[in-house]
Amino acid sequence: EIDAQRLLGRIRELGAVGRDGEGRLIRLAASDTDRQGRDLFVGWLRQAGIDVAIDRVGNIFGIWQSPENAGQAPLLIGSHIDTVIDAGIYDGCYGVLAGLEVIETLKASGFLPSRPVAVAAFTNEEGVRYTPDMMGSLAHAGGVSAETVLAAVGTDGSVLRQELARIGYAGDREPGFLRPHAYLELHIEQGPVLEGEGLPIGAVENLQGISWQRVTIDGVANHAGTTPMSMRSDAGHAAARVITFLLDRTKASNAPTVATVGTIRFEPNAINVIPSRAVFTIDLRDPDEQRLQAEEAELAAYLEQLAAAEKVTISVEQLARFEPVIFDLRIVERIEAAARARGLGVKRMTSGAGHDAQMMARIAPAAMIFVPSAGGISHNPREHTEDGELVAGANILLDVAAQLAK
Amino acid sequence: EIDAQRLLGRIRELGAVGRDGEGRLIRLAASDTDRQGRDLFVGWLRQAGIDVAIDRVGNIFGIWQSPENAGQAPLLIGSHIDTVIDAGIYDGCYGVLAGLEVIETLKASGFLPSRPVAVAAFTNEEGVRYTPDMMGSLAHAGGVSAETVLAAVGTDGSVLRQELARIGYAGDREPGFLRPHAYLELHIEQGPVLEGEGLPIGAVENLQGISWQRVTIDGVANHAGTTPMSMRSDAGHAAARVITFLLDRTKASNAPTVATVGTIRFEPNAINVIPSRAVFTIDLRDPDEQRLQAEEAELAAYLEQLAAAEKVTISVEQLARFEPVIFDLRIVERIEAAARARGLGVKRMTSGAGHDAQMMARIAPAAMIFVPSAGGISHNPREHTEDGELVAGANILLDVAAQLAK
Ligand SMILES: NC(=O)NCCC(=O)O
Ligand SMILES: NC(=O)NCCC(=O)O
Repeated sequence: EIDAQRLLGRIRELGAVGRDGEGRLIRLAASDTDRQGRDLFVGWLRQAGIDVAIDRVGNIFGIWQSPENAGQAPLLIGSHIDTVIDAGIYDGCYGVLAGLEVIETLKASGFLPSRPVAVAAFTNEEGVRYTPDMMGSLAHAGGVSAETVLAAVGTDGSVLRQELARIGYAGDREPGFLRPHAYLELHIEQGPVLEGEGLPIGAVENLQGISWQRVTIDGVANHAGTTPMSMRSDAGHAAARVITFLLDRTKASNAPTVATVGTIRFEPNAINVIPSRAVFTIDLRDPDEQRLQAEEAELAAYLEQLAAAEKVTISVEQLARFEPVIFDLRIVERIEAAARARGLGVKRMTSGAGHDAQMMARIAPAAMIFVPSAGGISHNPREHTEDGELVAGANILLDVAAQLAK
Repeated sequence: EIDAQRLLGRIRELGAVGRDGEGRLIRLAASDTDRQGRDLFVGWLRQAGIDVAIDRVGNIFGIWQSPENAGQAPLLIGSHIDTVIDAGIYDGCYGVLAGLEVIETLKASGFLPSRPVAVAAFTNEEGVRYTPDMMGSLAHAGGVSAETVLAAVGTDGSVLRQELARIGYAGDREPGFLRPHAYLELHIEQGPVLEGEGLPIGAVENLQGISWQRVTIDGVANHAGTTPMSMRSDAGHAAARVITFLLDRTKASNAPTVATVGTIRFEPNAINVIPSRAVFTIDLRDPDEQRLQAEEAELAAYLEQLAAAEKVTISVEQLARFEPVIFDLRIVERIEAAARARGLGVKRMTSGAGHDAQMMARIAPAAMIFVPSAGGISHNPREHTEDGELVAGANILLDVAAQLAK
């Protein structure tokens, strides 16, 4: 059994790091508040006598090994401690701190694993400051070079390389230095499924595809009062049409496709000036790769038709594109068995969110454990999971980790 | 005849004041760059031996009077020197500098007017930093108290009272201290009508009504990947629907109604977070008050229906509301006659833009002179009027001013 009070106390302590003047939790990747969160985690690793290694893209690894097992590929448990803007305290942190908790519990119990057990906090999983999301785990899995990642430019104009150096987390290890035997990730569901079915544990068998695009529409600034509607090239009007097209369409469909426009900006952004430019992001997801491609194609066709009809020019930049991932069935079955052994209801499910496990599945057998999110709410300060559910999830992680590391 | 080179040189000199790092002209009301523009104008007034008076809301008056006419109500010529973001150099400045030019020309010619002739630069005509637009002239006309105006909060959170004090333009005169006999304003058209008809002069007989509103939509932030479309309260989606409704509708109509959404903001504005809040402005105009009211009512009904259908709450704040204005027919006729006397084509027309003349018409007979805008473009750095057209307009202003002040 994990130490419930230690785990819950740490979740709360880390959740207090990164509050702005209005009490909002904002711990964007490689920011000052991210540094504070990282320092706290690294401090706990050191206290627990766990070796700390940091790679060039800022991923932090706590590695518990012994002279007997040091040569073996480790079992890796991971997640992230960066957050979105005005976040909840569980998204990511729960998985990292539960990983640490599992190592401490195994260590204290006298268990002698046949391979090292490591816990990772990956850089910029959220993708809010730098894109793509799951950036650190993608680099670890070899999906992108360290140099590309380090050159990423943030929404605030910052460059990741400089920010990591500034906060003291530009490490010396090469991304991917640690080749896992298997990868486990425990996370809050962030959606409504487990709560809706009254189940405490999800055994995540797959994860949907993600397409992130940035659309820039250029029109012509002109006077809001003097310019007849027929003579306008209104970039903002065109943007609103794209958003309405995409979101109305997705909402009306029976498919599980989801579409979100989370960010927008007009130029010059003045009340009586027709926008010369509109820039917005599109987050499009589907568990089925064919359908995701079809939706991307529908959008592209609409943009082309709109540009011609509305005297605007439209350019699109792909910020992230990940195909759906199927997790390792044997690990999924172990999660189900562990839940049943503890008398906990469990179901196989799909992850709607992206996770570091999605990247790690490229290089190791991987799977995820979910616990319920009250009201299906996440990326919101009202994000909540009951203490008992958090502890139950961490104990399932402990059980499966002990089997995989035995 | 006015001094063409002096006028054109000053327009260019003032147009160079307020360039940002990218060369964009941004001289927002009561900003540091507005101060530089004001200082230049006041310097020219002083050089010309014209008395300077500044009122509590920062309106600047240059008053040319003699012992003989000092007791009479003055002829006032005015406009503004604040600009929008990424502006052209003519909007407003042209009218102020032409007013100064007219006074200098009359003075040098030995003309002895029966009443003072004054030129005004009114504060915050554009309404981009503080709302409503035409703020200084509205206060001068008694349409709003000085205290209300001074408490205005800008898009940048600044308070006008502090900003005017900071830039040294919190004057001591009471707004409205100068009661004009008549008011004249020369301005670029900012629209396509004069160019389209190949005419150099517009005699502006009326000005359309303006309704400015700020709409705030509140939904619920949630995760872009995990939240089914049917379970969302997406403030951004609702905002896009409002924009599409209003602008599609106005565009499809045969009426001259114009509608613009120039500013927008999402919260938290993160790529994978459903917007919890969307804030945008609506600029709605029509020369006919009944039709403007009908359009406002259509919009209000749509917002009500949308709030109910989309699980969002919507609140609306009126930022400005001005009824259409009809200018003084006798002055309009004088403008037409002056143009014909100089062999210049002229037509009576409606102003699509708001102007200080619209406020001054509340307290004095008023009218406006327009000159063409190339391509009908304004509120854009490509705003342009030919030198010859600028000079012709200033000479019409001279002729009409000489008649009204005689
Ligand atoms: N778990 C999570 O919120 N990840 C962020 C990446 C995404 O948008 O899915
Ligand atoms: N002339 C001018 O651009 N005035 C600004 C106020 C408006 O938006 O009409």
